[in-house]
Amino acid sequence: CIYTCLQVVSYAPFTLFPSPLPKTLFHQALEAQTHFNRLIDRISQSPHFLEEALSRSDYMLDQSLDGTMSLKQIEINTIAASFGGLTSRTPDIHRHILKVANRLEERQRILDNNPAAGLAKGLSKAWELYGSERAVVMFLVEDEQRNIYDHRYVENELWLRDIPVIRRQFEDVCRTGSLDQNKRLFVGGQEVAVVYYRNGYMPQNYKSEQNTPLTSVSKPHKPPTFLCSFVAAVTFGDVNASIASQSWEARLLMERSCAVKCPDISTHLAGTKKVQQELARPGVLERFFPDEPETTARLRATFTGLYTLDMGEEGERTVDMALAAPDRYVLKPQREGGGNNIYGQEICSVLESMRDSMERTAYILMDKVQPRPASNYLLRPGAPLRLSLCLSELGMFGAYVRKGREMVMNECVGHLLRTKSSEHADGGVAAGVAVLDNPLLI
Amino acid sequence: CIYTCLQVVSYAPFTLFPSPLPKTLFHQALEAQTHFNRLIDRISQSPHFLEEALSRSDYMLDQSLDGTMSLKQIEINTIAASFGGLTSRTPDIHRHILKVANRLEERQRILDNNPAAGLAKGLSKAWELYGSERAVVMFLVEDEQRNIYDHRYVENELWLRDIPVIRRQFEDVCRTGSLDQNKRLFVGGQEVAVVYYRNGYMPQNYKSEQNTPLTSVSKPHKPPTFLCSFVAAVTFGDVNASIASQSWEARLLMERSCAVKCPDISTHLAGTKKVQQELARPGVLERFFPDEPETTARLRATFTGLYTLDMGEEGERTVDMALAAPDRYVLKPQREGGGNNIYGQEICSVLESMRDSMERTAYILMDKVQPRPASNYLLRPGAPLRLSLCLSELGMFGAYVRKGREMVMNECVGHLLRTKSSEHADGGVAAGVAVLDNPLLI
Repeated sequence: CIYTCLQVVSYAPFTLFPSPLPKTLFHQALEAQTHFNRLIDRISQSPHFLEEALSRSDYMLDQSLDGTMSLKQIEINTIAASFGGLTSRTPDIHRHILKVANRLEERQRILDNNPAAGLAKGLSKAWELYGSERAVVMFLVEDEQRNIYDHRYVENELWLRDIPVIRRQFEDVCRTGSLDQNKRLFVGGQEVAVVYYRNGYMPQNYKSEQNTPLTSVSKPHKPPTFLCSFVAAVTFGDVNASIASQSWEARLLMERSCAVKCPDISTHLAGTKKVQQELARPGVLERFFPDEPETTARLRATFTGLYTLDMGEEGERTVDMALAAPDRYVLKPQREGGGNNIYGQEICSVLESMRDSMERTAYILMDKVQPRPASNYLLRPGAPLRLSLCLSELGMFGAYVRKGREMVMNECVGHLLRTKSSEHADGGVAAGVAVLDNPLLI
Repeated sequence: CIYTCLQVVSYAPFTLFPSPLPKTLFHQALEAQTHFNRLIDRISQSPHFLEEALSRSDYMLDQSLDGTMSLKQIEINTIAASFGGLTSRTPDIHRHILKVANRLEERQRILDNNPAAGLAKGLSKAWELYGSERAVVMFLVEDEQRNIYDHRYVENELWLRDIPVIRRQFEDVCRTGSLDQNKRLFVGGQEVAVVYYRNGYMPQNYKSEQNTPLTSVSKPHKPPTFLCSFVAAVTFGDVNASIASQSWEARLLMERSCAVKCPDISTHLAGTKKVQQELARPGVLERFFPDEPETTARLRATFTGLYTLDMGEEGERTVDMALAAPDRYVLKPQREGGGNNIYGQEICSVLESMRDSMERTAYILMDKVQPRPASNYLLRPGAPLRLSLCLSELGMFGAYVRKGREMVMNECVGHLLRTKSSEHADGGVAAGVAVLDNPLLI
């Protein structure tokens, strides 16, 4: 088979200099992360609670009217966490730039950061617990692999530990996947110990090849262990039954297997924005941590305002509130990927157009966080270089592995600072607006 | 100044697997390298000898009629040695591929190789000897930087040693370069300790901006120290006086300075193919090593047949020989860069067209080395993947630093194996035909 294919490689966009971040806020986010891991885990084991939903473990620095700053959680993501690989390289990049610029004092304050190693530690722990040397870790990937180098950093860490890795698409699993009588998963003849989803976080990822009816995914096989790292959630409710496909069947096959899933379906659902919204309500956090007032206080301190658009009284109040002062809010679709948020007057026209339609329940309203802008240069292939007023968003990578009732690993394995020009209202790194950065603790 | 510029990055082509190379030949080349360093150094200090000329320290495996293999030197290069950076990464690449392919025994036999570190060691030694902490190492580079990542590996090694590096073009030196009364070189206000030429190896590199007469470069200022690593030579004789330019003036400025040059002009000239041709003649090597019969024997063992095309009796004999059996020879221009060699029947038409013209002296005739082909896959952006019958060429990186009469450093700092499909008659890695490889010693 001879084929020709030209691949174009470009660098991931990044800031020329690190961005200032108050030390106290960084440590607040760091210390909250293992508690978030436990929270997500407990939610994933609460099927009744999982009818309500929500979004990433990202923070923005909220500048109050009195000028003080605080940490506000934007979203939690439990599937396909991106940029843990690429951001593992950014500390060295900023250290190099600061050396060339002869800013040696700042250089010493760049934090070490290696989420790739931490995510791989979780995956390798899960692989060990599965307990078969020949079994592989399978990265479930998109067909057009725009962020492949980000995956490779995690993959390389696994190979360094002599853990074999394969990369497969939904289609490969459909075509060559099967379970044996012990529910062991085989793909292309290879036994799979761990499925690591780097795809499957948006409904569009589940492409239809033939119109088979939607297979239920509501009763997943309980895996012996699982592992979770945070990024990019999907709401399954967005998917119409008529567009269900082979990809859904592949997902079900993997879910039913005894392979470790990162994440399994319930952990995946625990990352939806609806869940986060529920958690913000009085008394809800306490249900998950009945004897830990300090934990609930620490988690609640990071929550930003979230408002439902459900059909009903509370949803009606939210619509009225948004129409009255649209500049104070962000209208977010109930799934991740970036680039779809709605701001300002557009909120009014969108809400008015779907006020009486179920369509509005696919959105959620959030308080707009007011971060403090800082000057920086954003380096992006093909974009002009100029000084911009920038906003930063801090994310934390959490990883945990539970076997049965035992938490085998629970760590904050790194951070992700993303920065964008303040003239761009919306967008993650993947959406081409925010770029990779490092915090310079102040 | 706002500008938009899209840069396309592609991987350097490489072989999927390492190529077999007999252990004895590898060590023969390795052991000869420090002697070649000394030879080049002695030639560079022999102005009378430098009227005759020559080319890379590359070897091909010569398979004689009886099936045995031997080492034959193809060329020595004393300027802008390429791929020392990129090839420092290839051992890890082949180790990874062999691990994925579960060929673990071969994996253990991939040699360590880090020419980038070795070249940087030489440059840093020269920088130290120059003795000014503020002074920089200046990489003299092309304006269209097609091989920039190769440079960066060497540059990064210098930054790791806290040695500042700048990258400048001939034009920058023309515009902002000057000498002070102590012949210290300043470019853009920065004192330059070491000039590392990664450009200037071909006459075309010396672009004309205004038609100034050719400035003589025959009496260079003797530098207190110099350093040399081998690759890609230029013959100054190719340059017509009427196209002389500012670039030549920049070269002269740097040459006259007390900055360390890698290489200085006499070392540069010592790398021409004419010099190599002279060295192959009986008694010539002995002039440089009068008391070292073992050294001369070791060097002579690596020489391949070289024949002059000068106007005269000996040149005439060469032409007749080539016309009689063109398939046994290669017709090479007297400068480097790759992709210009002439083979087979084309040798006859070229030689016949210029038989009576001085033009022919710009070429040299060489025995065609008959290497042993091996099967491999060549990975190249946009090219189809298929099994090819391949030929390999081994290069050695030498680095030395001399201060006055004292040899401060003299090492073989790594190797370079390049492989091409046997259907391509000619070409280095830069010419897009040969690709990076690693030897698998057998």
